[in-house]
Amino acid sequence: MTNFADRLAEAVRRKGTPLCVGIDPRWESLPKSIRERFSPDSPEQIASALEAFSLRVLDLVAPLVPVVKPQSAFFELCGPPGMVALQAVIRRARERGLLVVLDSKRGDIASTAIAYADAAFAGFPMGGGYFPIWNADALTVNPYLGRDAVEPFISSARSSGRGLFILVRTSNAGSGLFQDLDCGGRKLYQHVAHAVNEWNAPGVGSCGLGDVGAVVGATHPAELGELRRMMPNVWFLVPGYGAQGGTAKAVAAAFRPDGLGAIVNSSRGITFPFHPDEPNWEQAIVLATEKAAGELRTTSLGVV
Amino acid sequence: MTNFADRLAEAVRRKGTPLCVGIDPRWESLPKSIRERFSPDSPEQIASALEAFSLRVLDLVAPLVPVVKPQSAFFELCGPPGMVALQAVIRRARERGLLVVLDSKRGDIASTAIAYADAAFAGFPMGGGYFPIWNADALTVNPYLGRDAVEPFISSARSSGRGLFILVRTSNAGSGLFQDLDCGGRKLYQHVAHAVNEWNAPGVGSCGLGDVGAVVGATHPAELGELRRMMPNVWFLVPGYGAQGGTAKAVAAAFRPDGLGAIVNSSRGITFPFHPDEPNWEQAIVLATEKAAGELRTTSLGVV
Repeated sequence: MTNFADRLAEAVRRKGTPLCVGIDPRWESLPKSIRERFSPDSPEQIASALEAFSLRVLDLVAPLVPVVKPQSAFFELCGPPGMVALQAVIRRARERGLLVVLDSKRGDIASTAIAYADAAFAGFPMGGGYFPIWNADALTVNPYLGRDAVEPFISSARSSGRGLFILVRTSNAGSGLFQDLDCGGRKLYQHVAHAVNEWNAPGVGSCGLGDVGAVVGATHPAELGELRRMMPNVWFLVPGYGAQGGTAKAVAAAFRPDGLGAIVNSSRGITFPFHPDEPNWEQAIVLATEKAAGELRTTSLGVV
Repeated sequence: MTNFADRLAEAVRRKGTPLCVGIDPRWESLPKSIRERFSPDSPEQIASALEAFSLRVLDLVAPLVPVVKPQSAFFELCGPPGMVALQAVIRRARERGLLVVLDSKRGDIASTAIAYADAAFAGFPMGGGYFPIWNADALTVNPYLGRDAVEPFISSARSSGRGLFILVRTSNAGSGLFQDLDCGGRKLYQHVAHAVNEWNAPGVGSCGLGDVGAVVGATHPAELGELRRMMPNVWFLVPGYGAQGGTAKAVAAAFRPDGLGAIVNSSRGITFPFHPDEPNWEQAIVLATEKAAGELRTTSLGVV
């Protein structure tokens, strides 16, 4: 079983870019040619449309990027059929050789955290075997509940060769309300970064990075470098690039000198770069992916 | 449309107790007589067993308590069939006149938060109508992402007569890692309490309490009174009573002088007070519910 950090490093090197494609499908943004095949009169139909679009996106981006990040909220919004669609999306991504970060920002205590982690990774344990549910390579986790709420996620991930990305500094405008509070000369998000750095240490692989990553928004460029110094061996998942305003230059400080250390997510900018009536929407997705992948390839190699 | 806080106050007064029953079903704890009806060889079968048990628990406790709290992690662990079971559990609870707090500790930014909130409350908006997914009365929410991540949940809840419970002080032993950090003379959880108090103010109903509540663990009794003073008009959801060690006396300070202001959750202590081989497990649940409801009735009336 290969360490998650090493699998991610290998995938980024193979594709030559740290671009992560966010899968955040919404009915109202889907291409008209897909919406015409379904009727929006039931959650089942809408879920099927989201699935059809997402599977096509995966086929288009799989040759170009190492990793994708489905956002579970948009699938949950369709209820159980949406969760079936999410399973199909994750399965297809893995079939196409993509790593999958499931973005569901889970967090709970004790046995409840174990249930979320088992659902995300190895599956329901039963009779010495497992029923896998999401079977993701990594999961986003909220740290507010503290040490014993995060540990079950680490334990479950590490024992199955998977990884975590803990929310450290989120990309939204209002993130500072609590994350920026000064706690004894260090801001809250810096305390979380310190904990992530410790949790990550036992899971460092041969690439020099570990299996407990950090979510650090591209919308705070000055902090990316500071957090890179605080967490030298931690993988960063950087949201906020593209539609949220973060540029390739802004994320440069997230990378280590070897060009590894961060994956940079773009969702709407890659998957919805077209008007719903646009017939050539597939080409628009490929072009947007190639453009972002190229920008980030240059950035991560430090030649901006 | 009645304010959530007023609906909760009315329900607590009618049942004469602030006891909330947590629905956290696990296959390995189910009564043998239920497990015998299903085989643990698929997520569908396990989900059906969790559903059968949970529906029976709801029938047993509905005459005795005002509110129940399903834990979404244990249903998610069975995948899509588990989510179908969760829908059935919430529907049955509402049919029995119980209020439902969906405990899924969601939290995300912007349009993603809207998707989670729509899933929890009014449903998927489509063609002027809605497809309800969970249709819960209230949802637990994690505050780490800040103001603009919580506001979509407040907006969605308030516009549909529902409520929130924001994590302030969780009941787990390791909760202090971040929640206890001293931020300028006030601990992080006190900063969160201050924000919850402000968010709640526009939603105060005729009972004098509002629709943005706070999760405050019973395992921190000294803090319950302090937080009651900081958030005088905020409903508390108090986990940690019973199996986690909190006593009726320990939670007394969570209540206002009128006996309202808090609902106190017990999960395992109510729903699993028996060995799986016990044939009279239904009676054990009724007795455990009556005992806890009585203890908390006395406590909330201030006569401990």
